[in-house]
Amino acid sequence: KDRYQVCYMAGDDSGFDMMEGALLVLESLNLPIDWVRADLGWCMWEKSIQKFGEGDPRCNTVPPETIESIRKTDATLMAAITSKAGVKGFKSAILQMRQLFDLYINLRPAKTLPGVGTPLKGDPKVDIVLFRENTEDLYSAVEFFPLPAEHYALHKGMERFKKMGDVAVSWRVFSTVGCERIIRAAFEYAKATGRTTVHCCNKANVIRETDGLMKRLFLQIAKEYEQFGIKGIEENADATAMWLIKNPQDYQVIVASNVFGDILSDEASQLTGGLGFAPSGNIGEGTALFEPSSGSVPKYAHQYRVNPSAMVLTAKMMLEYLGLDDAAKKIEKALGEVLVESKPGTLTYDVLRDFRGDPNWEKNAASTIDM
Amino acid sequence: KDRYQVCYMAGDDSGFDMMEGALLVLESLNLPIDWVRADLGWCMWEKSIQKFGEGDPRCNTVPPETIESIRKTDATLMAAITSKAGVKGFKSAILQMRQLFDLYINLRPAKTLPGVGTPLKGDPKVDIVLFRENTEDLYSAVEFFPLPAEHYALHKGMERFKKMGDVAVSWRVFSTVGCERIIRAAFEYAKATGRTTVHCCNKANVIRETDGLMKRLFLQIAKEYEQFGIKGIEENADATAMWLIKNPQDYQVIVASNVFGDILSDEASQLTGGLGFAPSGNIGEGTALFEPSSGSVPKYAHQYRVNPSAMVLTAKMMLEYLGLDDAAKKIEKALGEVLVESKPGTLTYDVLRDFRGDPNWEKNAASTIDM
Ligand SMILES: CC(C)[C@H](C(=O)O)[C@@H](O)C(=O)O
Ligand SMILES: CC(C)[C@H](C(=O)O)[C@@H](O)C(=O)O
Repeated sequence: KDRYQVCYMAGDDSGFDMMEGALLVLESLNLPIDWVRADLGWCMWEKSIQKFGEGDPRCNTVPPETIESIRKTDATLMAAITSKAGVKGFKSAILQMRQLFDLYINLRPAKTLPGVGTPLKGDPKVDIVLFRENTEDLYSAVEFFPLPAEHYALHKGMERFKKMGDVAVSWRVFSTVGCERIIRAAFEYAKATGRTTVHCCNKANVIRETDGLMKRLFLQIAKEYEQFGIKGIEENADATAMWLIKNPQDYQVIVASNVFGDILSDEASQLTGGLGFAPSGNIGEGTALFEPSSGSVPKYAHQYRVNPSAMVLTAKMMLEYLGLDDAAKKIEKALGEVLVESKPGTLTYDVLRDFRGDPNWEKNAASTIDM
Repeated sequence: KDRYQVCYMAGDDSGFDMMEGALLVLESLNLPIDWVRADLGWCMWEKSIQKFGEGDPRCNTVPPETIESIRKTDATLMAAITSKAGVKGFKSAILQMRQLFDLYINLRPAKTLPGVGTPLKGDPKVDIVLFRENTEDLYSAVEFFPLPAEHYALHKGMERFKKMGDVAVSWRVFSTVGCERIIRAAFEYAKATGRTTVHCCNKANVIRETDGLMKRLFLQIAKEYEQFGIKGIEENADATAMWLIKNPQDYQVIVASNVFGDILSDEASQLTGGLGFAPSGNIGEGTALFEPSSGSVPKYAHQYRVNPSAMVLTAKMMLEYLGLDDAAKKIEKALGEVLVESKPGTLTYDVLRDFRGDPNWEKNAASTIDM
């Protein structure tokens, strides 16, 4: 392919500012990309309310044209959006896209960047790629509250809850296909990039059926990859949460179910500069949507103060996905140089405050307009 | 009360060694305690197999006499036991006790100790008390694999899983009573100890019914405690995993559901010396069982090399529970002094290796027999 179509979405609040920064970087690279603009998030929610009226079930954060654009293009680059947990009827755009396009891989690298360092003594080198399952688990939205009486009959273990007032139940759903494809994705990645271990984080010692299934399939698939010098290691997710801090250098590739992956990837990102540097990719068969892991930081909206690096690294991930590896390498190199040089006025507040210990971080922090 | 009856259980592997260390400390305090010995864990599992034969449903890690001893005494002190996830029919002793005695509070403090430090740059002072719900959630053991066909009819959201091969489901069960009592325990503790914030970690933005219930009750109960100068803060559990590393000093009391509490408490313990220093209490109405958070470290069994501090601090927690506060304070002070003095031969391998960076940790590590 010599030209690619990429859908981009500016996001909410500071997401907008970060996207602008990333687009400047992308433009400077003269890429064989035609950009298709689309919208989703809070702005679209408000628009749909204007159009259909509050409470109308057609109100949504994702308009149909955006879904079309994502479908038709080769990849999508999306800025951070608001989550607005409290608003009635509001459905998270990103959760909808993950389900709609069956984007079963949530790819979350955490890699120490030059000039940023870690919050850990001794600055261990962190280079972890986490494969988070992105469609199942407690994200399946199969839930009950209060639990209808007939459901108690389904399992004798529910008897004891009858005296506990109203009971809420959320189903943790794992399928064989769902487990297998994310485990294989992790091993294939390890194989393609010369990594030698894949960790599977679970609680099969307690959650016997869902995590038991995950663990069994993992150990089975791991055997196939032994011949490539890759070792599969399964461990308890609580232990991982501990060891990530103690020995982050021991992890190369991690595969985890949706909720554990959500928590562990945020923890890992904090070991390598925090959300200001955390990219992520939602990848399915033929569709992929890249977004920074961070939120949209409303308090700094349109002040261009929020670290655009997560967005820039997200763009880099997307270029790799498209096969534009040279451009991706250029971005990584340039970002590293900016961070190492750290000229006055080029570093954002998070870097100055959290990693350089600058007491005047507020004053010295860059506005990304100037960069 | 002038005398107390305490049940103690020596545990498996290195659990045994740690208990011996803790008992030496307790003996030196001349406490008004009558000790009642009981057994549970792997040793009892093997005994029950000898008695009933392999595969007999009466085989168990907890014999009936032990249950009686726990019931009759004022508190129980338990050493680490093996988890042996793979063994057929094997049921974790601690999980059984939590359910049987409805020990709904899992109390997990993480406090920086003098002379140990944190793995974090700048050594922030950590002093967190985590209240983990200990009886519900995915620990309810309500699970299906493969999911029987009629269960698909219960929720329209299950349709899409029909094409995903066999499906496993684990029920995440939250009751109003269960949420309310753990939330109240956390606030009562904050009130009694003069803390000013309680954090509730959840994913109500995604897991709407179970975590929604938890969040609603938390915000409601928090209002009652405003008059005592205590602020209730609810946040996403993934964000907590990040901020615990970034700003551990911002947390005082945390309340979390069972699985999130399992993960976050292990993470927090790693910020204050790791499992070698992590005590825990399983507390219900009138029954309480104290155990170190660590496992039984089989590879060092009966070498007296594993850090007994977690066990000693667990004993201290138990003394506080019984109201023997002076003795508890003496233990904390003495432990701090040993750690600060750090005479040759008194520190265990984990402290030397992980916190003192001693390259000869293996050679210099204490055997707790000599302490
Ligand atoms: C915003 C939220 C729905 C989302 C999630 O829980 O997956 C976020 O935390 C993430 O990790 O992408
Ligand atoms: C051993 C295991 C069953 C237990 C748990 O998951 O609760 C442990 O991790 C803990 O935290 O006490």
